[in-house]
Amino acid sequence: MLTNTWNVPRVADAVIDWYVARNPAMGVTTWGISPVVAETSDMFLNDIVGRHVTREQVFRAIDSAKDGAVEEGAVGGGTGMTCYDFKSGIGTASRKLPDKLGGYTVGILVQSNFGWRPQLMIDGVPVGRELIDYKPLRRTSDTPPEMKRDIDSGSIIVVLATDAPCSTRILNRLAMRAQNGLARTGSHTGNTSGDFVIAFSTTRRKKHFNDRLTYLFEQVVEEGDLINHLFWSVVEATEEAVLNSLFKSDTMVGIDDRVAPGLPIEETIALMKKYGHKQVHLP
Amino acid sequence: MLTNTWNVPRVADAVIDWYVARNPAMGVTTWGISPVVAETSDMFLNDIVGRHVTREQVFRAIDSAKDGAVEEGAVGGGTGMTCYDFKSGIGTASRKLPDKLGGYTVGILVQSNFGWRPQLMIDGVPVGRELIDYKPLRRTSDTPPEMKRDIDSGSIIVVLATDAPCSTRILNRLAMRAQNGLARTGSHTGNTSGDFVIAFSTTRRKKHFNDRLTYLFEQVVEEGDLINHLFWSVVEATEEAVLNSLFKSDTMVGIDDRVAPGLPIEETIALMKKYGHKQVHLP
Amino acid sequence: MLTNTWNVPRVADAVIDWYVARNPAMGVTTWGISPVVAETSDMFLNDIVGRHVTREQVFRAIDSAKDGAVEEGAVGGGTGMTCYDFKSGIGTASRKLPDKLGGYTVGILVQSNFGWRPQLMIDGVPVGRELIDYKPLRRTSDTPPEMKRDIDSGSIIVVLATDAPCSTRILNRLAMRAQNGLARTGSHTGNTSGDFVIAFSTTRRKKHFNDRLTYLFEQVVEEGDLINHLFWSVVEATEEAVLNSLFKSDTMVGIDDRVAPGLPIEETIALMKKYGHKQVHLP
Amino acid sequence: MLTNTWNVPRVADAVIDWYVARNPAMGVTTWGISPVVAETSDMFLNDIVGRHVTREQVFRAIDSAKDGAVEEGAVGGGTGMTCYDFKSGIGTASRKLPDKLGGYTVGILVQSNFGWRPQLMIDGVPVGRELIDYKPLRRTSDTPPEMKRDIDSGSIIVVLATDAPCSTRILNRLAMRAQNGLARTGSHTGNTSGDFVIAFSTTRRKKHFNDRLTYLFEQVVEEGDLINHLFWSVVEATEEAVLNSLFKSDTMVGIDDRVAPGLPIEETIALMKKYGHKQVHLP
Repeated sequence: MLTNTWNVPRVADAVIDWYVARNPAMGVTTWGISPVVAETSDMFLNDIVGRHVTREQVFRAIDSAKDGAVEEGAVGGGTGMTCYDFKSGIGTASRKLPDKLGGYTVGILVQSNFGWRPQLMIDGVPVGRELIDYKPLRRTSDTPPEMKRDIDSGSIIVVLATDAPCSTRILNRLAMRAQNGLARTGSHTGNTSGDFVIAFSTTRRKKHFNDRLTYLFEQVVEEGDLINHLFWSVVEATEEAVLNSLFKSDTMVGIDDRVAPGLPIEETIALMKKYGHKQVHLP
Repeated sequence: MLTNTWNVPRVADAVIDWYVARNPAMGVTTWGISPVVAETSDMFLNDIVGRHVTREQVFRAIDSAKDGAVEEGAVGGGTGMTCYDFKSGIGTASRKLPDKLGGYTVGILVQSNFGWRPQLMIDGVPVGRELIDYKPLRRTSDTPPEMKRDIDSGSIIVVLATDAPCSTRILNRLAMRAQNGLARTGSHTGNTSGDFVIAFSTTRRKKHFNDRLTYLFEQVVEEGDLINHLFWSVVEATEEAVLNSLFKSDTMVGIDDRVAPGLPIEETIALMKKYGHKQVHLP
Repeated sequence: MLTNTWNVPRVADAVIDWYVARNPAMGVTTWGISPVVAETSDMFLNDIVGRHVTREQVFRAIDSAKDGAVEEGAVGGGTGMTCYDFKSGIGTASRKLPDKLGGYTVGILVQSNFGWRPQLMIDGVPVGRELIDYKPLRRTSDTPPEMKRDIDSGSIIVVLATDAPCSTRILNRLAMRAQNGLARTGSHTGNTSGDFVIAFSTTRRKKHFNDRLTYLFEQVVEEGDLINHLFWSVVEATEEAVLNSLFKSDTMVGIDDRVAPGLPIEETIALMKKYGHKQVHLP
Repeated sequence: MLTNTWNVPRVADAVIDWYVARNPAMGVTTWGISPVVAETSDMFLNDIVGRHVTREQVFRAIDSAKDGAVEEGAVGGGTGMTCYDFKSGIGTASRKLPDKLGGYTVGILVQSNFGWRPQLMIDGVPVGRELIDYKPLRRTSDTPPEMKRDIDSGSIIVVLATDAPCSTRILNRLAMRAQNGLARTGSHTGNTSGDFVIAFSTTRRKKHFNDRLTYLFEQVVEEGDLINHLFWSVVEATEEAVLNSLFKSDTMVGIDDRVAPGLPIEETIALMKKYGHKQVHLP
């Protein structure tokens, strides 16, 4: 589950409820629920103290999870987030390898909440420097000192999913390459930046009970080309997912009339062209 | 905070409440609450599904925290725990170095919930092997397969506090030595054993706001003898704290009439003597 | 010491000799030499099997070490290296913070030996993609399969030095940001890429013998702005050091007439201008 | 390879020679030699400065490697080592699981060089404390300060081999349990104790070239009992291997007439009996 910082325990508690309601043996004759709840802080736009996420919203989020395209922008845990001093939220991207490399997919979903505007780089173009005087992330007159940011950077949650058969070791290696994707958007992995990557492969479903001593499983060969293409997929998809979290988020007015401006798409496209990008498709 | 597994989110949520009530700026003009809540599972003796810890109990626990001797045995988070197939709970121990080594103290508090009876070793004496036929950790007739333990081991939380001036690096090094103390009681650091050590020094209080570029602090010299004495203190105090968690806990009847027998102290003293320990003081 | 892969033990052995010759007590009444020797592989251009580095060269390298500007390009350990399929070697760069941030310097030295040409990015400009048909890293007709690179990437050694007062923890945090700098040149931190960062602060000289229990030292405040500026300095200086290792290295013909072309500087400058960079200074 | 501290580079260099002589393609059309050489320091008994291990001895060691029982005590890299202030060296032990647990073997080999005599514990018996006044590890009158040990501890190399099919993750988990075995002999994993565990499974031989995208392999189930039995085997075999390194090593007179007394076996057996061990077999 993805949420904001202070709702983490409430969401985790609701996940336990949801699970127990569907498995009465859990906690009685068997065990094993470990809710995974990640967060970034929306205290700039949101009344974080109020902890407004309810148990019912958590149930609905789980019950309504489905296949297909993922909603992006100011939705779910991403609702109140900002990135490079623009409004952001949820972003996703994926890469599918060609059949000769197994046809595997690497999917990335981010909840982005980091970055200082002058750092923002889009496909190598210094968009943030060019938009330095565009509408600021407006704060109220009583902005406390720690919210007058210099180059500090918030944080990001990256969820990495793949159908390539990966061991823990390989998933760790994939996860570490998300940092390269973030760096390509301008991030220096800032000081308070709790950058988390949660990586999993859909190919390793473990049995709750397993009476066998050993089992066989498939794993990506680390001596060949495939692993590098998986790495590169992580880099590209992470970079793109962050950009999508920006492109899909509109200006939002939050608590105390604070304003997080959306990335101005027309201006950004013009900048991309100015810096030699001949064709710019809207994402 | 120490609690059982499924109360973790509820306790964390209450900690946020407690903190916010005392610091209205928190989450509004400043930020930074990160509740630290650790757990072991009491599902053998307790109705873990019920999550019976209340917000008020959390507030009371924080408000009533005080200096001095720590209550041991079946109290607080330790109430429903078992260790080496005997009733256990909270245990503490400490070592104070002589003045020529700075007079520093290392204190350990454990919430013990691990171990298979035949492994139990007390000061080198194979007490567990000798008490193999003593009252078993009795389970109901419908004991599920995963509760018929072979040598599996549950888990333990170790809290390590010291007034020696330690860096993160040195605290990590101290924390790793708790494993030696656990091993001396018989532990093999079992498979599902989420053995956690949380270590802190009372000498490094950081300011919430700090406008300086650098600061000076004191730190233990790692090239001398002191560090080894701190290590050895961790080993001894961890070993003793686990033993105290056993010696201070009486037989408990829990949910579904399950019984966790207390370590039989008279028999244990007799065994210590049999194995050459001339004097045995009650702890 | 920086060298090629198979000379590591010879260089380490010579370092011990050099040290013992100057400290006869070493290994007799005291101890502590731990040579630090890092490597990347030059087997494309060099007869690596021959292990041509001599003891005398090691002695000379140590004896002639001096302050001031560092030689860059195809010198020392960097002699036979390639990067993004161009000739490379040693590169350096540094950033000095303003006085209000302590005036600290972060210096980076790289021995670069990684990357696939299409990935090369210079200040955001896709120079590698544009130079895809420029002189290839020419291999002989009998190029073995594993040298027909797809997107695999070799490796790099990054040496990070600073006069900011840093703990082990802070040095680790600085070192991890070098990855962002590498990513900004195009790297995906490839599979066989043994990317190492060795970081040290010049402010923490430990005594060989230290009879005190504790000592005081200065350390960067992690709650303020300075740490972010140090991070950003690492990112920028690492990016620039890699670029300098390319800009300072000319075409080299190596073993078996293999050719590593130098980065064509005129063409690169033209590309920078094409992509909107108005001013391009030669580094 | 196991050797003493300062011979590490010479041994590594000879391993490269040995390998290249048998594989002329290595370093020319293919690559991949990474010598693994571990060390402990024998500077108390040996002229470590002289670095007396020759290239021919390394070749002979590799060429004469064979199946079967391993020589123990003051042989090979273990020749000049001491442990708990007694003469030690190489020790080995293994555990074989019953057929119903797969019949797997865990083998341990140690080169032991750590520990302070009063800490020595044999099967729970405080042998070290009882032998505190037995012949000391005699040093010359000019013993330098850092060799007048308090509770400092030298180091140990543990080699862990198994035919259980293990992933990197599981090998890491096995390796960490060696610390429990060391703790059971009395170790506090001392300050300068570079305790290394090198773990490998004989079941995962990787191909030098592998054109496939994925491969299948067998792996121990981590949800069952087997993994705990492997852990316990590591604990027991490591404890026993350290004890064997002591029991198999006789008194040695080294450089400058320094004397490392062998563990007195008769006295030790008597102590074991005194502490309630009815039967004591010579190892």
